Amino acid sequence: MVSKSAFDRDDVGFAVPAVPGMPESEIQTPCLILDLDALERNIRKMGDYARAKNMNHRAHGKMHKSVDVLRLQQELGGAIGVCCQKVSEAEVFARAGIRDILISNEVRDPAKIDRLARLPAFGGRVIVCVDDIDNVPELSAAARRHGTLIDCLVEMDCGAGRCGVTSAQAVLAIAEAIAAAPSLRFAGLQAYQGAMQHLDKFEDRKRKLDAAIAQVREAVDLLERNGMKPELVSGGGTGSYHFESMSGVYNELQCGSYAFMDADYGRIRDADGNRIDQGEWENALFILTAVMSHAKPGEAICDAGLKVQSVDSGLPVIHGRNDVVYVSCSDEHGVISDPDGVLAINEKLRLVPGHCDPTCNVHDWYVGVRNGVVETLWPVSARGKAY
Amino acid sequence: MVSKSAFDRDDVGFAVPAVPGMPESEIQTPCLILDLDALERNIRKMGDYARAKNMNHRAHGKMHKSVDVLRLQQELGGAIGVCCQKVSEAEVFARAGIRDILISNEVRDPAKIDRLARLPAFGGRVIVCVDDIDNVPELSAAARRHGTLIDCLVEMDCGAGRCGVTSAQAVLAIAEAIAAAPSLRFAGLQAYQGAMQHLDKFEDRKRKLDAAIAQVREAVDLLERNGMKPELVSGGGTGSYHFESMSGVYNELQCGSYAFMDADYGRIRDADGNRIDQGEWENALFILTAVMSHAKPGEAICDAGLKVQSVDSGLPVIHGRNDVVYVSCSDEHGVISDPDGVLAINEKLRLVPGHCDPTCNVHDWYVGVRNGVVETLWPVSARGKAY
Repeated sequence: MVSKSAFDRDDVGFAVPAVPGMPESEIQTPCLILDLDALERNIRKMGDYARAKNMNHRAHGKMHKSVDVLRLQQELGGAIGVCCQKVSEAEVFARAGIRDILISNEVRDPAKIDRLARLPAFGGRVIVCVDDIDNVPELSAAARRHGTLIDCLVEMDCGAGRCGVTSAQAVLAIAEAIAAAPSLRFAGLQAYQGAMQHLDKFEDRKRKLDAAIAQVREAVDLLERNGMKPELVSGGGTGSYHFESMSGVYNELQCGSYAFMDADYGRIRDADGNRIDQGEWENALFILTAVMSHAKPGEAICDAGLKVQSVDSGLPVIHGRNDVVYVSCSDEHGVISDPDGVLAINEKLRLVPGHCDPTCNVHDWYVGVRNGVVETLWPVSARGKAY
Repeated sequence: MVSKSAFDRDDVGFAVPAVPGMPESEIQTPCLILDLDALERNIRKMGDYARAKNMNHRAHGKMHKSVDVLRLQQELGGAIGVCCQKVSEAEVFARAGIRDILISNEVRDPAKIDRLARLPAFGGRVIVCVDDIDNVPELSAAARRHGTLIDCLVEMDCGAGRCGVTSAQAVLAIAEAIAAAPSLRFAGLQAYQGAMQHLDKFEDRKRKLDAAIAQVREAVDLLERNGMKPELVSGGGTGSYHFESMSGVYNELQCGSYAFMDADYGRIRDADGNRIDQGEWENALFILTAVMSHAKPGEAICDAGLKVQSVDSGLPVIHGRNDVVYVSCSDEHGVISDPDGVLAINEKLRLVPGHCDPTCNVHDWYVGVRNGVVETLWPVSARGKAY
């Protein structure tokens, strides 16, 4: 039984939450808005930092999934290209003309490997990660079949507890297999310590990264002794990029969240004990929500619940307000504690989401605002591209 | 600065995760799959139940957001129409030809009220909820402007702690205002106790619902004494529908999750102490995932993380397996404890998501499978329709 509407994607409701030129007050909630001034400042700042430290910045597109944001990161922030996590995301960026794409993840499914091997035909460099020597002939055969070249990084698990090998010997064995395989090129190491990014204390993050850097350095040394100096040693996130930049081992940063920020990253502290959302980076991403019910004193209900955010890293924070607090949510509603009854029906609030990456992935659009006016509307180009 | 690609929604990657006729083993992961046999059994069962109890079943479309699933609920389950939470969702269902639509929520934004008032022009009945007497003239003016009639339910908060008034007197006052307002019709009560649906013990749920029913009965009695007998008394979810059906007060059920089920609902117990996913309802919805890394003994990494599910109600459960456990996740990865090393690269697993509603909302497609073969592909028609 195949439904008539199976491929009907046009049966949509409101097409967009805003149009350029509209005052911010008329934006249809809930939706994502970007403070374009803050976004541009964050992007320039990371660009300046990476340049000063002589590091590549390869912006993580898995965070924003947006071709438009990535272009800003290239134009204003000097990003050398993009990293992303899925072949389907890489396809979006390749079709948009991005010419240096790292899939910072393993690709094992035969159909996905085939698609990966077609990507260099868009005219750019395509890099993928490997953590299993059995993956090498699979990738090589696909690249040969399509007459392309795939660059490969060996992925190290330096504390994230996800993909990746842990020993320098395992790195060397896979690197040698890549170097010997037709249509593949050994391009270096992927070593992202994801598990420490959100530790609040600077010293705790530093301790984890010191261990990771030592592990990566051992692998780099072994590779060099075997005549296989890695071109790229890539990693680093918004919670750690200082450490990788100072390491003398890494030469490429993969920061993503710095551009938008979120409540969870906002809570972490810099070396001086200051929250990183109070000076280092600015909140540029918000869920715009409106009050839609206030039938009980002390409690207002807004229109942003679980379907416009991910609460895996905590609830959102109401930006710029100390008098009201977002205290709980269900699918379509947020409950706001409003002890003094200050909120009015249709009053709009900016929520800083708990976790930007999976929150952005729920939305179709970014509404870019500047000086209280909608300036642009950008699609979340790779939204839902999980396969 | 308006990007060239602002309205370019065609820069997509893989268009679909599967095509009809494909063996299940070739489906591209991660994606949502529906066991069509289980889905149809669940739908028929709820239809039979509602018919036997002489209750309307108005299927909750906010759960699946799918025109195709709703049509099955009408055809096989006798659903009288749909309820949903947003005007943008209602637009999707109205355009698809659904002719009895309840927005089980308040609508306060002027642009949304205007769109709501246009909906009856599709040719069906449109019902909305009201919990504030100030909302009545807003709705009335919009309906008059468009020459339509909007049916209104007064929403009671009978324990959910969200929208809705709590007292019978407040219900009566709003009902009278609706009845007196041009182009509006008082149609009854909305009274959904959302906060108790997931309490594990039958007795705990019953206690909460007994209180809710008493509260609703008081309002119904007061309305009747004032010559305003409600046509509809609507509410009830997968964790409570028995109670509303037996109440003698409710006449309409709004169950949604029963059709797909999820891990959180699966854990609740029926009157005999049995899990409701072991007899009462079947798991019909799964996240299909594949193993993509197994570089460390004891731990396999799969390709389903935060971007293909909502973990607000807990992690997913691996269906039909006792030897491996999904223990944690990050944006694109799930970590599976595999103490005996039984999982192979590319091995596929069915995950029962923790919470079906916000999980479905992340996906563009349902892949319908039967007997190991892909039978259909249904769009998540109202995906992302939050405004």
